[in-house]
Amino acid sequence: MCQNHGVAYIKPGVVEVQSIEYPKLAIGDRMCHHGVILQIVSTNICGSDQHMVRGRTTAPAGLVLGHEITGLVIEAGRDVEFVKEGDLVSVPFNIACGRCRNCKVGQTGICLNVNPARPGAAYGYVDMGGWVGGQAEYVMVPYADFNLLKFPDKDQAMAKIRDLTLLSDIFPTGYHGAVTAGVGPGSIVYVAGAGPVGLACAASCHLLGAAVVIVGDMIPERLEQAKSFGCEIVDLRKDTPLADQIAEIIGVPEVDCAVDCVGFEARGHGSDAGTERPATVLNAIMSVTRAGGALGIPGLYVTGDPGAADDAAKEGSLSIRIGLGWAKSHSFYTGQCPVMKYHRQLMNAILYDKIQIAKAVNVEVISLDKAPKGYQDFDKGAAKKFVIDPHGMIPN
Amino acid sequence: MCQNHGVAYIKPGVVEVQSIEYPKLAIGDRMCHHGVILQIVSTNICGSDQHMVRGRTTAPAGLVLGHEITGLVIEAGRDVEFVKEGDLVSVPFNIACGRCRNCKVGQTGICLNVNPARPGAAYGYVDMGGWVGGQAEYVMVPYADFNLLKFPDKDQAMAKIRDLTLLSDIFPTGYHGAVTAGVGPGSIVYVAGAGPVGLACAASCHLLGAAVVIVGDMIPERLEQAKSFGCEIVDLRKDTPLADQIAEIIGVPEVDCAVDCVGFEARGHGSDAGTERPATVLNAIMSVTRAGGALGIPGLYVTGDPGAADDAAKEGSLSIRIGLGWAKSHSFYTGQCPVMKYHRQLMNAILYDKIQIAKAVNVEVISLDKAPKGYQDFDKGAAKKFVIDPHGMIPN
Amino acid sequence: MCQNHGVAYIKPGVVEVQSIEYPKLAIGDRMCHHGVILQIVSTNICGSDQHMVRGRTTAPAGLVLGHEITGLVIEAGRDVEFVKEGDLVSVPFNIACGRCRNCKVGQTGICLNVNPARPGAAYGYVDMGGWVGGQAEYVMVPYADFNLLKFPDKDQAMAKIRDLTLLSDIFPTGYHGAVTAGVGPGSIVYVAGAGPVGLACAASCHLLGAAVVIVGDMIPERLEQAKSFGCEIVDLRKDTPLADQIAEIIGVPEVDCAVDCVGFEARGHGSDAGTERPATVLNAIMSVTRAGGALGIPGLYVTGDPGAADDAAKEGSLSIRIGLGWAKSHSFYTGQCPVMKYHRQLMNAILYDKIQIAKAVNVEVISLDKAPKGYQDFDKGAAKKFVIDPHGMIPN
Amino acid sequence: MCQNHGVAYIKPGVVEVQSIEYPKLAIGDRMCHHGVILQIVSTNICGSDQHMVRGRTTAPAGLVLGHEITGLVIEAGRDVEFVKEGDLVSVPFNIACGRCRNCKVGQTGICLNVNPARPGAAYGYVDMGGWVGGQAEYVMVPYADFNLLKFPDKDQAMAKIRDLTLLSDIFPTGYHGAVTAGVGPGSIVYVAGAGPVGLACAASCHLLGAAVVIVGDMIPERLEQAKSFGCEIVDLRKDTPLADQIAEIIGVPEVDCAVDCVGFEARGHGSDAGTERPATVLNAIMSVTRAGGALGIPGLYVTGDPGAADDAAKEGSLSIRIGLGWAKSHSFYTGQCPVMKYHRQLMNAILYDKIQIAKAVNVEVISLDKAPKGYQDFDKGAAKKFVIDPHGMIPN
Repeated sequence: MCQNHGVAYIKPGVVEVQSIEYPKLAIGDRMCHHGVILQIVSTNICGSDQHMVRGRTTAPAGLVLGHEITGLVIEAGRDVEFVKEGDLVSVPFNIACGRCRNCKVGQTGICLNVNPARPGAAYGYVDMGGWVGGQAEYVMVPYADFNLLKFPDKDQAMAKIRDLTLLSDIFPTGYHGAVTAGVGPGSIVYVAGAGPVGLACAASCHLLGAAVVIVGDMIPERLEQAKSFGCEIVDLRKDTPLADQIAEIIGVPEVDCAVDCVGFEARGHGSDAGTERPATVLNAIMSVTRAGGALGIPGLYVTGDPGAADDAAKEGSLSIRIGLGWAKSHSFYTGQCPVMKYHRQLMNAILYDKIQIAKAVNVEVISLDKAPKGYQDFDKGAAKKFVIDPHGMIPN
Repeated sequence: MCQNHGVAYIKPGVVEVQSIEYPKLAIGDRMCHHGVILQIVSTNICGSDQHMVRGRTTAPAGLVLGHEITGLVIEAGRDVEFVKEGDLVSVPFNIACGRCRNCKVGQTGICLNVNPARPGAAYGYVDMGGWVGGQAEYVMVPYADFNLLKFPDKDQAMAKIRDLTLLSDIFPTGYHGAVTAGVGPGSIVYVAGAGPVGLACAASCHLLGAAVVIVGDMIPERLEQAKSFGCEIVDLRKDTPLADQIAEIIGVPEVDCAVDCVGFEARGHGSDAGTERPATVLNAIMSVTRAGGALGIPGLYVTGDPGAADDAAKEGSLSIRIGLGWAKSHSFYTGQCPVMKYHRQLMNAILYDKIQIAKAVNVEVISLDKAPKGYQDFDKGAAKKFVIDPHGMIPN
Repeated sequence: MCQNHGVAYIKPGVVEVQSIEYPKLAIGDRMCHHGVILQIVSTNICGSDQHMVRGRTTAPAGLVLGHEITGLVIEAGRDVEFVKEGDLVSVPFNIACGRCRNCKVGQTGICLNVNPARPGAAYGYVDMGGWVGGQAEYVMVPYADFNLLKFPDKDQAMAKIRDLTLLSDIFPTGYHGAVTAGVGPGSIVYVAGAGPVGLACAASCHLLGAAVVIVGDMIPERLEQAKSFGCEIVDLRKDTPLADQIAEIIGVPEVDCAVDCVGFEARGHGSDAGTERPATVLNAIMSVTRAGGALGIPGLYVTGDPGAADDAAKEGSLSIRIGLGWAKSHSFYTGQCPVMKYHRQLMNAILYDKIQIAKAVNVEVISLDKAPKGYQDFDKGAAKKFVIDPHGMIPN
Repeated sequence: MCQNHGVAYIKPGVVEVQSIEYPKLAIGDRMCHHGVILQIVSTNICGSDQHMVRGRTTAPAGLVLGHEITGLVIEAGRDVEFVKEGDLVSVPFNIACGRCRNCKVGQTGICLNVNPARPGAAYGYVDMGGWVGGQAEYVMVPYADFNLLKFPDKDQAMAKIRDLTLLSDIFPTGYHGAVTAGVGPGSIVYVAGAGPVGLACAASCHLLGAAVVIVGDMIPERLEQAKSFGCEIVDLRKDTPLADQIAEIIGVPEVDCAVDCVGFEARGHGSDAGTERPATVLNAIMSVTRAGGALGIPGLYVTGDPGAADDAAKEGSLSIRIGLGWAKSHSFYTGQCPVMKYHRQLMNAILYDKIQIAKAVNVEVISLDKAPKGYQDFDKGAAKKFVIDPHGMIPN
């Protein structure tokens, strides 16, 4: 039980499964009596991991990746009171203390006590507090009583583990985008991006009662995936402007609200699709959202991007048509999803069969040693969500 | 009674009081049976009028200016049911039908029926539907039952007319900025800009219970004005960075939330204060607002600015450090204030002496023929709000 | 075209189809230039009509009933600007002026200008302003631009008219109950009552993403109807306490939130089911809702009930266990549903096939002359929603 | 340091200062490593303590009273991470774990882990979990990192300790009543009760920007106290109906919203003022609140009242005119105030001189041995808030 292996970032384009340290109830030399050790049941590869692996961040070599974690509690610190050994739990990707001003109001994405550098932390992520990632066999989770969501019944949960594993990040993240955009019964929504977060957002829009969910992307397989669960689609490689494609579907060129599930590595639309245009999505969603609409922006924008095309973008400044948004009285909601705000309710939605989220994002379970291959396929645009099963515990 | 005079835009830098047509219950050749004719009791010069007068818009020569109107009903269209001749009323600057989807949910700033070109209209403003302005003796107000706020007692109202005249725009606009920024009891707020909207916003923050209101500007007289009613101030001409100036006041370099009361003609801070830097305020408020905070943006950003320094800015695209806002989970609220949402409650606040808004913005009453002089003084940075009294009805 | 027939209340237990006056664009001697005349396409019998017909109100003999109206505009008043002859429209049951303080904030259920006796009005209802009802061939609708919801395409709408006819009252009313109770994705809800409003509420809970919807009633056919679209059920005639029946379904005896779709003519539970116990439902929903939950109360409670069992109930005072609600920090939401707040979005949900609301409430279309029979069957507890088709326009 | 004295309930009408056990970091035989020991700087007598002392509850003899606590940390459990020895802190009266479903969404008044009998706990209160009260020299506070609010500067705080001591209960409780009633700038509010919570509510209404705050009571000194900081008053002993008294003040007989700061031991109004009428306040606030208004109910209603006049009231059932509330579309907000939701912001309001809350409620500091006298005077209706200073630390 004292062995551990994990997925480490080596250099741009390369990740490796390595032998890594077995977790302790500590972070650096600070003890974590409030923490637990998890045997990881499932841990997913995330689109935001790709930013690091593509070399678009300052992630150091050797960083153990992985912030989407579900596991079994195998050891609990002395101060853990409500989580017990044997519990099967979902781990929100945002690490939170449960005791600071922000956590107390539910803003667990910007906890003040878990990252000396800035508000907010995550497992296995650059600039996010130095916490060891969870694409591994075992991991340590601090403030366990606060952070963890226990599944009520282990057998029931294992039977739906492909769905429940998505509660650690992309299901709440996509849902948060929809909620902040104001999606509700009868809404007509545009979701930019058909990667896993975009698909999770689209499925969330349906769960929220949206009348029409239009998903845009450039990869035909991903658009097909969106179509498979009732979304309308627009192909952004086409020269037909986005507004016109939307009008073909709903009769008018504007939607009620929109969600940016792409973020800063966006490319242009149409003939410009080959070029990185980091503000494309933000400007596109303003142009197709009706006056008074809200824009959810769960897609990641960063404060530093060494690989950006120009100096402004290198520090996260983009040319945004704010005059248009202002004329339309738009509101904009950015930032990490505070997973804890949503995961209990979304767990219920899964357990009571209100949503087939694993199917929507096309989960594929792989073993830990197949993780590097998963990274590669995902980077090429596979219309799949790769879920790593480090202990071979996931039933077929 | 069939004579009328109004303030017309002539060319960049020049406005004139001209004889203008006496209003009819019509807009163009469309009859307005739902409208009323007002004898104007007070009508204010607005900072947003200056954009036109400075030649920063495509406003045509001859445009009669003025969207901040308070008046007496002297004629009511045949279909007006609840407003009566003799009523003293405040006119929201946003013209609204009260019958479209947006008006029905209180978004009167983006009414769908009063401007063929885009959602939203205003009196005497370029691109805002072609409605005749109200810096005049008489004006026509459509959809009177819906738009007008009647003062409950005329004598009481005339005694406070310097305050009540601000209900047509800047008091609600400043207040809207504060509300959208999430200001409430105990808040620590930064208000960018000490022009009339900034001062109205600062006074609104106090009304909302804010603990500390910090106002930034470059004009010493305006900062003095802010100080006069209990605000803290920062002088943006100084080389000391804004965050440091804030830290000197409250001990930390970040506020809870912030409001942009400047808009697109912003200049740089510190040594850069002589140069137009249209994204300065947006980027500044992100940098000094704590993670999780909200940003109210009542300051105007436009879709076209012929006088902008570069091509991007000419179409309203600015270089915004969205990566920083995202890292801080900021939300952004833009657009025209929907005055009707607030004017009744703010009228009560005035009538029951909860706020001295005229004093806060330093109202100066002038006659109609002094309007061109008022424009000039205001453009030079006078720490005053000019209120035109076209019929000499305002008591000293 | 100058003939008209309608359903009139005669005396307790008796309604008749009578020849009635063809509507004018007037209410009493007040002209209604803002009104339209509708040819009624569908008009539904409502549970709240039954209170009058059972003699539980002071409704006068001869009152023309009917407040759930869908129709074709055949004449428009001179002040109607946006609704046109030939439009197919849904009429919210609450009559609203669109110009008063309450309408301006969306509280159209308590409009201040349409009922001299109290805030709020409705067609064909006692104490609701004296407006003529719409279980008829033709009816007048005032403030048409404000009140009416136009269906975008007439043929499409006629194909779904069984669903769309429910937009005038019970679909929004049930939905309002769910929304005020805080129902959202993952919620576990108890809906008291499986009449049409209860069923519409249960279907709305599903639309809103609820994980489990438990419906309670005493009539087996109505419970079967609830079961038919995925609800769990509890039979209130059983001696097993409600909390225990709920625990059998979800494992714990408390739900997240609850909706009272019964109102003041409630009977006791279990062995007490034969007796009127007007506070039963309110007390029951407090007892089975978890601490912190919200209670939606669209079920009607009245200020005067001549048929009540005791003096307190005769004036609408009931013995409510407020101490229990207080200990659980419950909040309570009462009153008429403001239909306009929801009907556009719910129309979209119907048109885009997100909900099968007619099927959920088991719509049965009947001719106008069958209305008295419909009243009788409904009073006996038929698990049906009767929709009157006065002109034989509804396709099979 | 191992001595301790506290105020104990002996029998109806009698409390005594007794030698009590010095607190341990434990509750019963459960260790509280997450707790701290406080040297109590101030601890207030609360109106809700009087219910116990008057014998209106099942409080056992010997119960150490006191749930309004401010103190110095003198010992911190081994698992306390962010609170330090020497910190001066405010203790919310509701004990909360910070780890359960309710605490995570800010509903700390109904924590699921601190009271085996029901959700929610408090210090020194019957049925509230058995925690030792804090009208004493020392007390133990569990989950200290979560519960405590640290004052930023000790000297500054001691200079305002008369105000800050009110953060543990009545200031937030009164404020919560106002917030749930929807009070904001321009509101016209009726506050029932001019005891300390009523006065704190009235002062909170002013802080929130209310235009008119009308306070009703039967004790002239308490009404004078309300008048002293700008409230309007109504004397409920008068035969003039409440609505008429309100109309004399504001011209109409209805307010925008109302707050019940009295609770279940209410007496009748007017000639009925000598008799207990436990539903009087609830029915009165419905009758004087406009349609669409909200009712905040921080006044305590209980599930068991051995001293009630009839059997229904003994179990907390009162005859409430719900039919009237329904006709007016009222909403009702009950329950303990979740202090943590508000205390940080209200602390800022005190520290930055936005409110003089100690003056509003007329704080009188007394020594611990004077506590029994304080209880007596308070029970007789003294227009004072008694603050116990057990260590003589409060400056004059």
